[in-house]
Amino acid sequence: MQWNGWGDPEHDPAQMISESTRALLEQTLGASLSEQPPVPLDQVRPPASRLTQTARAALRTVLGSAGLRDDDRTRIDHCGGKSTDDLLRRRAGDVTPCPDAVLFPASHEELLDVLRICNEQRIAVVPFGGGTSVVGGVEPVAGPMATVVTVDLSRMKQLLHLDEDSHTATLHAGLRTPEVEELLGARGYTLGHLPQSYEYATIGGYAATRSTGQASGGYGRFDDMVVSLRMATPRGTLAPGRSPASAAGPDLRQLVLGSEGTLGIITEVTVRVRPLPHARTDAAWVVPDFSTGVRAMREIARAAPRPTVARLSDETETFVQATLAGRDPAPGSLLVLGFEGTDSEVTRQRAAVDEALRRLDTSSAASGGTHGPAVAADSSAVGDWRRSRFDGPYLRDALLSVGVLTETLETATTWSQLEPLYHAVRDALHASLDGPEGTAIVMCHISHSYPSGASLYLTVATPCGRDPRARWARAKRAASDAIAANGGTITHHHAVGTDHRPWMSTEIGALGAASLAAMKSTLDPAGILNPHKLIPDGPANVTDA
Amino acid sequence: MQWNGWGDPEHDPAQMISESTRALLEQTLGASLSEQPPVPLDQVRPPASRLTQTARAALRTVLGSAGLRDDDRTRIDHCGGKSTDDLLRRRAGDVTPCPDAVLFPASHEELLDVLRICNEQRIAVVPFGGGTSVVGGVEPVAGPMATVVTVDLSRMKQLLHLDEDSHTATLHAGLRTPEVEELLGARGYTLGHLPQSYEYATIGGYAATRSTGQASGGYGRFDDMVVSLRMATPRGTLAPGRSPASAAGPDLRQLVLGSEGTLGIITEVTVRVRPLPHARTDAAWVVPDFSTGVRAMREIARAAPRPTVARLSDETETFVQATLAGRDPAPGSLLVLGFEGTDSEVTRQRAAVDEALRRLDTSSAASGGTHGPAVAADSSAVGDWRRSRFDGPYLRDALLSVGVLTETLETATTWSQLEPLYHAVRDALHASLDGPEGTAIVMCHISHSYPSGASLYLTVATPCGRDPRARWARAKRAASDAIAANGGTITHHHAVGTDHRPWMSTEIGALGAASLAAMKSTLDPAGILNPHKLIPDGPANVTDA
Repeated sequence: MQWNGWGDPEHDPAQMISESTRALLEQTLGASLSEQPPVPLDQVRPPASRLTQTARAALRTVLGSAGLRDDDRTRIDHCGGKSTDDLLRRRAGDVTPCPDAVLFPASHEELLDVLRICNEQRIAVVPFGGGTSVVGGVEPVAGPMATVVTVDLSRMKQLLHLDEDSHTATLHAGLRTPEVEELLGARGYTLGHLPQSYEYATIGGYAATRSTGQASGGYGRFDDMVVSLRMATPRGTLAPGRSPASAAGPDLRQLVLGSEGTLGIITEVTVRVRPLPHARTDAAWVVPDFSTGVRAMREIARAAPRPTVARLSDETETFVQATLAGRDPAPGSLLVLGFEGTDSEVTRQRAAVDEALRRLDTSSAASGGTHGPAVAADSSAVGDWRRSRFDGPYLRDALLSVGVLTETLETATTWSQLEPLYHAVRDALHASLDGPEGTAIVMCHISHSYPSGASLYLTVATPCGRDPRARWARAKRAASDAIAANGGTITHHHAVGTDHRPWMSTEIGALGAASLAAMKSTLDPAGILNPHKLIPDGPANVTDA
Repeated sequence: MQWNGWGDPEHDPAQMISESTRALLEQTLGASLSEQPPVPLDQVRPPASRLTQTARAALRTVLGSAGLRDDDRTRIDHCGGKSTDDLLRRRAGDVTPCPDAVLFPASHEELLDVLRICNEQRIAVVPFGGGTSVVGGVEPVAGPMATVVTVDLSRMKQLLHLDEDSHTATLHAGLRTPEVEELLGARGYTLGHLPQSYEYATIGGYAATRSTGQASGGYGRFDDMVVSLRMATPRGTLAPGRSPASAAGPDLRQLVLGSEGTLGIITEVTVRVRPLPHARTDAAWVVPDFSTGVRAMREIARAAPRPTVARLSDETETFVQATLAGRDPAPGSLLVLGFEGTDSEVTRQRAAVDEALRRLDTSSAASGGTHGPAVAADSSAVGDWRRSRFDGPYLRDALLSVGVLTETLETATTWSQLEPLYHAVRDALHASLDGPEGTAIVMCHISHSYPSGASLYLTVATPCGRDPRARWARAKRAASDAIAANGGTITHHHAVGTDHRPWMSTEIGALGAASLAAMKSTLDPAGILNPHKLIPDGPANVTDA
């Protein structure tokens, strides 16, 4: 992973922006773009480590000398995640905050010892899987502590157990998706979890952040896949999940899922796996507009069985993606569906989609809407999405290099609120970005949907301007306020971290915040775990709601 | 509802046991049975109410005079749930513990006021929906308080909102299933949640106990259906669920679900609803034995789409049900499937089942198992289950009247552990019940299954013997210990209440118990809510796990 960008260093993003694309960008964004060269690594120095000799010695006793590293490069590689703000800081040579050391426990038991020592020594502990957080989740914030260490899970990479009768796999938290798929694939299984970050993101990170993959229609959200978890805390082990389903009180798995390292560090996750699919096929349609597409997605989300992938781009994203792929952009909104499974499962998925789209045609005709079919096949777009679907973060680096700021944000709500929310967030972004420094392109797609609602995933591209960090902070605040005011969740699958924390009190209310704070006080009495993330401040100020 | 038995008083259970059935029971159970007439209601007196005049006056100010009742009959009707132990006590004329008064709030706001008063006056509060708990969940235990009131939700019965775009309905907690289905059915929708208790059980109770209905294959568990909830606590309102899915931290809906009135009282639940099905059809098969049936259920649980209903009876239950229905019992295990939806959805469900059963045949043949088809249609059994599926609780009253003790218990685990768990629990029940007082019939079915595991639902019939309550307590303890020792959950859908509480520390561990206790201290600082239920004692004793 690049220290100041995304992904494989061999993959040169500069080639992704042609001269003609750059000219088109200048025209569209209404600004002349200038190169923004990053500060080279050899000119960057992290602050001195504050880890005491006492703590270092105690930790080395548990971890060995290879298990505690505080060289500059290791610390820089763990100085945060991959939000655009993170990259802007690093490109400017700023690698603060930086962990005072990086720890590499090789087992759950070693991690329990590490947490015991850090608890005694009052050292803040930040878990780190693939380091792909885009919300500040892995930023090494010391909070009220004098020292902060990052715990890198990369030495915990085993497939611990595969139960072929139950179709479950127990996986170490440090496994990355390609490693999981290789281990499972050799036995004839797949996890089927493919978020855009899949090359680097880890099993523990997926659980800690409630990740959602691009094939969520068929494989479910990551939290849907989890049968049980094991989490190390300063008080010992919490390992909820005694059976696939239970009525034995509140589901404590759901407290561990989404806890973002604030309650403990997840070391093992037992997940449902599936046999490798026999068949895989894609299809694409064009609908006249986003609004029609939303209704199509709604019907498809209620299909049984559902397609494995269902994704709708709004008119702007449809136009931009066709342009980037060198195709003639057709008017309308692009709907991409993917089908996976046995041959007959694929047949049934397609039949269910056909039925859903027939319902859409019937309701469109009944409401005096479009005449003729609401959807038309667009075979030329079928391959574009599958070829380019993991390119986003690489493209962001290329755009930053030519002075274009890009970032994404996402939310979810019920179907009835989805279009008002979409317009409110778009309007907020345009209002905060369009001006003397240029304008913004705001694209949106729906890639995760449910019988009762769906997510919105927005991508923004705008000139960097004089102060790109301040420019984006304003836009993000405006978009987040619009989400909160229009009934959306502050995050559907990026998690909370530092960036969404100011909106958590609105999201879960004062008693919800107090409940999380009470959990944290129980599992992490000294407050060493991932300080200032997720859980809003002020549990002492709770008043009756 | 009968005060000392199940259901509609017009439904006379005595007619359910013919002379020939009784003779067969005596022969099978190895004991001569004798009539056990219950103490009539007019000979039963509850203890005097301990509610102070101060508290009564304060509560009447909020609720009006109709909203607080402490007449004998109302108190007796709320003196507990419907476990066999509950019925045995009431048939013996014992109606303790009895609530000191029964409160009937008409709104969330009234309930908040009630909780404020009870918090000030240190009055224990037990929520009551349909009163169908079989685990002591609604037993009016005062715990450390001097007084206990039951809060009956039966004045909260509105369909508050139906969102037809999102297919969600916001329902008052006090609505019973037939009322819900009537309200939704008039608008073209169904909830599709039909546990055996459906005639009386309420929406709030389903949420508080993580109920599972007989059509869980198609409609999901109740907790799957929930989009948001509103819960009144002594500290105010907790209302989690801002969108169908979210990554904004731990899912607080899952803390409210299954909380059994210990953290607050649920007043409103927004659930996913479905259009009324166009088509409904059943099918039944016989498999050679339970073990083959388990493999069939496993394949069916992974079908896409799944059938709406899938239920497998073991050899004993298959034999007994055929006998009760007056059919010739065929050897083997009965598999009943139900299909619901549009015509084409039903077609796809059937196709998916056919594919699953073909996989079973292939794997059976490959492992040198049964030759010929592993499953054969049994059309004669198709209707039996649908006709009799809600009769169990009525039949229990009839059996108690002739001196036969019947009770049910349930658990769940992964597919790989299911048969070992089945044998362990059956063996424990037989070991504790078979002896000089007769023997036990132990029947089992699987009615809720998942890709990674399934539930086991056991029904026991045995002579009452000299002390039926002690006899069942021994058997229940032995079965629960066997469940805990063999990796099962202590309850898959009956909840915890008082009866499963001794096994909760094994179920969730010391840190899990401490986490629930911390949540309770936050939401219910005085500990007035449903004392001595669900949450195990001793959070002060937590040691590192």
